[in-house]
Order: sequence, then structure tokens, then C-alpha cells
Amino acid sequence: MANGSESKKKPLTEGARGKRVISGMRPTGRLHIGHYFGALQNWVRLQNDPSYDCFYFIADWHALTSDYADTSGVAKNVIEIATDYLAVGLDPKKSVIFQQSQIPEHAELHLLLSMVTPLGWLERVPTYKEALENVKDKDLHTYGFLGYPCLQAADIVIYSDEGKTLVVPVGEDQISHVELSREIVKKFNFHNIVLDPRLALPGNGMYFEIISDSFSEHFKPGSGRGVPYERSADEIVRLQAQVRKRVAEVGIKNWIEHLGKSLAARAARQQLKDFADFKQNNSAFSEFHKEILVEPQAMLTQTPRVPGLDGRKMSKSYGNTIMLTESDADIRAKTKVMVTDPARKRRSDPGNPDVCPVYDWHKLFSPSETLKWSAEGCRTAGIGCIECKAAMADNLIKWIAPIRERRLHYQGQEKLVRRFIQEGSVQARIVAQQTMVRVRDAVFGKDRVRRRNLRPLIKHQAG
Amino acid sequence: MANGSESKKKPLTEGARGKRVISGMRPTGRLHIGHYFGALQNWVRLQNDPSYDCFYFIADWHALTSDYADTSGVAKNVIEIATDYLAVGLDPKKSVIFQQSQIPEHAELHLLLSMVTPLGWLERVPTYKEALENVKDKDLHTYGFLGYPCLQAADIVIYSDEGKTLVVPVGEDQISHVELSREIVKKFNFHNIVLDPRLALPGNGMYFEIISDSFSEHFKPGSGRGVPYERSADEIVRLQAQVRKRVAEVGIKNWIEHLGKSLAARAARQQLKDFADFKQNNSAFSEFHKEILVEPQAMLTQTPRVPGLDGRKMSKSYGNTIMLTESDADIRAKTKVMVTDPARKRRSDPGNPDVCPVYDWHKLFSPSETLKWSAEGCRTAGIGCIECKAAMADNLIKWIAPIRERRLHYQGQEKLVRRFIQEGSVQARIVAQQTMVRVRDAVFGKDRVRRRNLRPLIKHQAG
Repeated sequence: MANGSESKKKPLTEGARGKRVISGMRPTGRLHIGHYFGALQNWVRLQNDPSYDCFYFIADWHALTSDYADTSGVAKNVIEIATDYLAVGLDPKKSVIFQQSQIPEHAELHLLLSMVTPLGWLERVPTYKEALENVKDKDLHTYGFLGYPCLQAADIVIYSDEGKTLVVPVGEDQISHVELSREIVKKFNFHNIVLDPRLALPGNGMYFEIISDSFSEHFKPGSGRGVPYERSADEIVRLQAQVRKRVAEVGIKNWIEHLGKSLAARAARQQLKDFADFKQNNSAFSEFHKEILVEPQAMLTQTPRVPGLDGRKMSKSYGNTIMLTESDADIRAKTKVMVTDPARKRRSDPGNPDVCPVYDWHKLFSPSETLKWSAEGCRTAGIGCIECKAAMADNLIKWIAPIRERRLHYQGQEKLVRRFIQEGSVQARIVAQQTMVRVRDAVFGKDRVRRRNLRPLIKHQAG
Repeated sequence: MANGSESKKKPLTEGARGKRVISGMRPTGRLHIGHYFGALQNWVRLQNDPSYDCFYFIADWHALTSDYADTSGVAKNVIEIATDYLAVGLDPKKSVIFQQSQIPEHAELHLLLSMVTPLGWLERVPTYKEALENVKDKDLHTYGFLGYPCLQAADIVIYSDEGKTLVVPVGEDQISHVELSREIVKKFNFHNIVLDPRLALPGNGMYFEIISDSFSEHFKPGSGRGVPYERSADEIVRLQAQVRKRVAEVGIKNWIEHLGKSLAARAARQQLKDFADFKQNNSAFSEFHKEILVEPQAMLTQTPRVPGLDGRKMSKSYGNTIMLTESDADIRAKTKVMVTDPARKRRSDPGNPDVCPVYDWHKLFSPSETLKWSAEGCRTAGIGCIECKAAMADNLIKWIAPIRERRLHYQGQEKLVRRFIQEGSVQARIVAQQTMVRVRDAVFGKDRVRRRNLRPLIKHQAG
């Protein structure tokens, strides 16, 4: 169990791992085996892989985008879903498990991203249009629902860490969401270019000059005033403002190309050895350009097919699920009436396991000999569906037992579950706050006022 | 000067005043006399009126809705505008003067309000459509720009205080913005009805019953089980969830009417003296119903006409302003070429002061005898425009001198100005945080997790 388990992974905030994983679920109720095989199994796998540090959250603000008119279930479901996270083996010692609304910085970044996000991008999201057409019992024509992908982008990239890959494990249908997050981040970075403060060092004076010269009216590629010298932080800030303006006018590609030419010309003319380090034409810029937020990457995960009891997609609204808390008796009762190959009408008809939901479930829960027995027995009509289902149920029950046991353990310990969420949220918030310091600096300039401001405020809060 | 001035008003956070004023300006640059007579004069008047406590802010996030592509001026302009606030007489001892982006709670409330705000309300805002049509040098088709009124609503109502009127001083053209804020708040309150915890007291048991009975299938007006008893907090929370669901189904008016009938019937049948207190039919509900956010009211202020130097609306983009920092020489030079009654072409033509911008300015700056001299001299061609303008300039210079002096004083003390903004922001944030505790409670249920969570977090921040 999470509470007592050994932790082989390093503490998360050390940042020793190269890749960061971020994913979340909306607290809409208890989870079922479809959630497990569709996402949670993979989350646990990543958590136990030492190359990833994992952030898993409960997206309670997202629940409001559609459930704003009745929020009564949200608070309860936060605890339910956290309990399920722990039950399937997410471990607060290995992963940061937290609640979105406890990190108000998500809302602040959402607001800042909203400024650069074109309306058309949001209006064209396929799932947005689908929801507006199909959902009839809720009014989704709200500003918040339209902004869902913008909040999602904030949720992900607030855990940006320079030099760390940011990955979002998704199924095929969600790749476009991560793509949209990337586009929003790209646009934000483009409007908020930040020059590396190292550009102020005397050794980098020539690069400062080349960038700076690109704004002079009679700019000749390769011009330069000669001896480099140290620059002040204010000079860097002024140069940065110029870069942003020019990039907004001519586009980032054109400007980088322009710079590259200048650099190449100068390097050729002066044959300066310093330039030899810059192998590509655009490196003068890319070397001294910091991307404030990391563009997230989709990590496509292969997930097994988990049909519902009736053969349709497993979904709570179809009533065709097996919950992670399901009792043995309920599992037997529900699987007994499960849909099978519809062509096998009589016991004596041979069946086709490849189109049978029960066989799909065998693949999830049964050992290979049972799988073989089921497939052969089905094809030869050697076994009946009833015995096939019963065998599958036995294995499902065996599989679910430890999860359900942990579920019951944590269910009786709501305080402990709350503590885990709290502690995880504190861990997450520290990272989010660090990102927001960088973001505010990039948007509003150096954030000295705010930082000095924290101290008196904290006294008030604590008092 | 603010720094050394006597403070006759009570400390602001005591909440002794009955009305709270909230207003702000976008940091787009230094302010001019149009800003003074259009808003700041009134802000100072309200600050010195003991019935108001005043919150004046610098709306730096709002500046991003249109200036996201070039934010280089925003940080500098925050200081400029704060300096102007102080120069015109806003006093940090009497008013809370703060910077929007230092109160991240605005962003959180904005997000929560966004969930309930219909897209159509935002799309139909006249100034939104106008801006999309007229502004050509910036791309305003962004999610953030559309959400401007939603952020504005959050800015205002985060300073809600139960039982305090919340007023927004506005000109006629901005009344519709405050109206929209009211509508958004109304909708938020409607979806997040909170029952007063006093409903749990034994003396209020009958009201609990009447509300509760309205959900029973065979509800008869006036039914009731008799002896009232004390309720638990959980029962109130459950009842509240029922009320929210029902109100979402039938609408708040219908439901209150239903309750009122029930209450009246029961009062008539049982002749209970307790009910005598409830004079109106709907009071059972309204007495035990807490509105989470206060609906703001527009306070229409009569402002004098302040045409620009060229007779058009005074605006920095027209280059027809007198800044609060304008030098005597510049004032003389600029007013010398000011537009006058266009019909008065020659010195010997009589003029009409009622259509003359110079006369409008005389009304702002000159004593009554000068006013009379100017009007009569103009109508009789007794004076020329040149001497009329010179007299006006003399008085404008006299008027502007103390403001400009304070401006110069604070201009040399940027650290002091920053400290004022910081301290004001701390004061504002304390109020905003109190509101957000109530708001989070209303949306997500009792917020115990978060509150306990504050302590470890603060240690981290301070460390």
C-alpha cells in the first residue's frame, strides 16, 4: 500500500529525472475497470519507471465547465477518485498526486494564456462542437466551456521545467488536445521571448551586438563595433523589448534568418574563433533565447480494448461497467448476463472469440491456459458461454481483489486520503509557483515587487 | 502629500463604512487632465467621504487583453499610473491602492465566473463588437479579449462584503459593463445558493421543514411533522444540494413562490406566532439564503466636458492632451494653438463660448470673474482668442502646479511608490482571500482541506 510501501525512486522535487509526466481526471464519480486499462495502468507503469517524474491530478475545476449548475457531487468525488488512485497503486511517495483547485496558479496561467489564444482555435476543437451538438441536458454555451483547452494547457505547462521533456500520456482521441496545448504555448512563448541573462557577459558581447545591430536603420549584415564589453541587466531588458517588437512585426522565422545571415557574414569576414561554436546559422538567437514554457508532447499509449458489459464503450452513463469497488457477487451477477458473440445463439453453435466482449475480458484477467481453453472451446462449441463467463469472472475477481482491498482500506481512512492530497498539492504548488515566477517575469518584467511582497502577506495568512 | 497627510478616516479593513467603491484603470501610460475630470476627481471625492471605503487598482492584466503581443510598456506604466494616482491626491492611508496582478485571487474568481457566463452575453457587448470592427493594428479575436467583462466582474465582486453595497463609479458609457457584471454575479449566486447555517438552530426547525418538505413527492402546502429540533451541519449541506437542484430545474422564482405558499398555508392553519415575523411570502427562503457575491451597482457620476486641444475627445492617440506632468511652457505652447469657436474667424467677429473648447476649459480652471470676462468678451468681440487662451492657460497652470509638484516628488521616489502599491495590494489581497474562502465553500463545499493546507505551504514560500 502507498502508505507503507518502499520507495525506490528519488524524491520528486530533486528533478533528477529527464521527463515529466502530467495527467489528470475529472472527479465525476468512482472509477471502473475501463479507467484502469485506459489510463491508470499506464500511470502506475510510468510512476515505477525511474526516467519519469509523474504529476497526477484531480481536475475539479474542469468538472465545473459542464457541472456548474450542480456542483454538489464534485467535493465528494474528489475523495472518491483520490481513493481509487491509491487503490490501483498510485503511490504518493513516487508520484505527485494533487487537486487542481488547490493550485490557484493554474487559474493565473490560464488567464495569461487566454490573452494569446485565438478564439477560432477553441471554436474548432472537434470535441467542443460535438458536445454542443450532443449534450442536451446541460447548457454548454458558456465562456468557461469554450476555454476548456486553454485551462488544460495551463494544467500541463505550469509543470514546465527548463530542459525537461513534458509528456502527456493520451489515447489516440486526445492527441489533438495536446497539439492545441502545444500551439497555445508556442504562441505564448513567441509573444514573450526572453533573452538569456548570460548575454550580458563580456564573452557574449558580440552576440549582443549582432542582435542589437539588427534594429539599426542601416543594418548591414556583418557590421559590428568591435570590442565586446559587459552589458547591464537593463540593456538586456531593453534589447529584449526590441526583439519582441520586431518579431511581432516580421515573424520569428524571418527575424532569425536575418540574424543568422548577419552572424555568418561576420564570422566569415572576421574569422573569429568564438563563432566557430555556433554551428547553425540561427544559433546566435537560439543560444540566447529562453523558452518560458515547455511545449508538451503527447505520449501515445496502446491500451487494450475494454468493452462494456453490453459490448458498447464502457461508460457510467450506459450502466455497463464493473467498478473498482465491485463485490464478488455483483461481478458474478453482472458478467453472467454479459453480451457475447451474437452469432452464437445456441449452446451447440460454434462462436468467434474475436468478436466476443467476454473474450476481450479474458485477455485482461485470465492466464494463458484459460485463454486457450476459452478460445478453443468457443470455436468448437466445446464449452458454453455460461462456463466461459464464470471462468472469466473467477479471474476478474482474483485480479480485482487486491485493488478492492486497498480501496476498502483507504475508504475507511478519509483523513489519510485527504492528507495525501494536501501533501501532494503542496509539492505541486511549489513547482507551479516557480513556473509562475518565470512567467510573470517574462510578461511583466522582473517581478521584484511581488517577491518582496510575499513576506508581510504570509504573516497575515498564517495569523 | 499622501505620505505625510493626516488621516481622518478610520482604518479601511475595519469595515465600518457602509459602501465600498471599486474602480481601476489600465496602465497604458501617463494620465492627462481628461482622466482627472473623467474619473480621478471623483475617486478623490469618494475617498474623502466617510461613508465609502475605496479600492482603486491598476488593471495590468486587463492591459494584456489587447497588448499581449507587446507587454514591454506594462510594467513601466504601472509605476507611472500609480505616481499619477498619488499626484492627484489619492492617499494610501484613505484608499486601498493596488495592482491587479498582485491579487491572483482575481484570476481564480474569473475562472469560476467563466463557468457560468453565457458566451452570448460576452459576444453581444457593444464595445466588444466595436473594438473588433475598429481596431486594425492588433488581433483582438482572442479568448482573453472576449472574456474582458468576466475578468472585470471578478475584479469588482471579489471585494464583496456581506451587507455592504458595492458601487462602481462610472460614466454613462460604462453603465452596461456594470450591468453585465450584475448579471454574471446573479447567475453565479443562482447556481451556488448557500443556506444560512443558522437554519440548523432548533428555533428555525420549522423553516428547515418547510424547505425540506418541498422536495417530498407528495408535498402538500402546510404539511409538517410538528416539533422542530436541531439539525446537523451535514443536514444543511444536503438540503442545500437539494435546493440547488430544484432551483436549477424549476427556476428560482417558481421555487420561492412555491415555498411562500407553503409557509403562508402553514402559518394560517397553525397560527404560529413564529411565522408572524415573516412578513413577506418568500421570506422563509430569503431569510436563510446567503448571496455569496454582492451584485455591484453603477454609480453614475456627472463629469464635466473636457474636449481635447483640437475639440475632439481628449485621447493620447489623438495627441490632443495636456498631461498631468505638462510643463508651463508646454501648456502655453499647446493652448496657444487650441481650437476655438470655428465661426469666429476674425478678431472683430463675435464668438460663441458655448461651442468653444477654450471656454470649456475656463469652466474647469478659472475663477468666476474670469469666466464672465471670457464669455462677455467673446460674445462682444471685446477680447481676442489669444488673450482668452492666455488667461485660461494662466489658471490651468495655477491649477496643475500642486498636482505636478506632487508628481515630481513621487517620480523621484519610485521605491516609495512601489511600497505603496505593495502595501495596498497586501490590504486588498486579505479582503480578496476572505471572499474566495466563501466562494470556494459555496462551489466545492466546506473548504477544510485547503485551510489546513495553508500552513505547510506558507513555510515553504517563506523559506
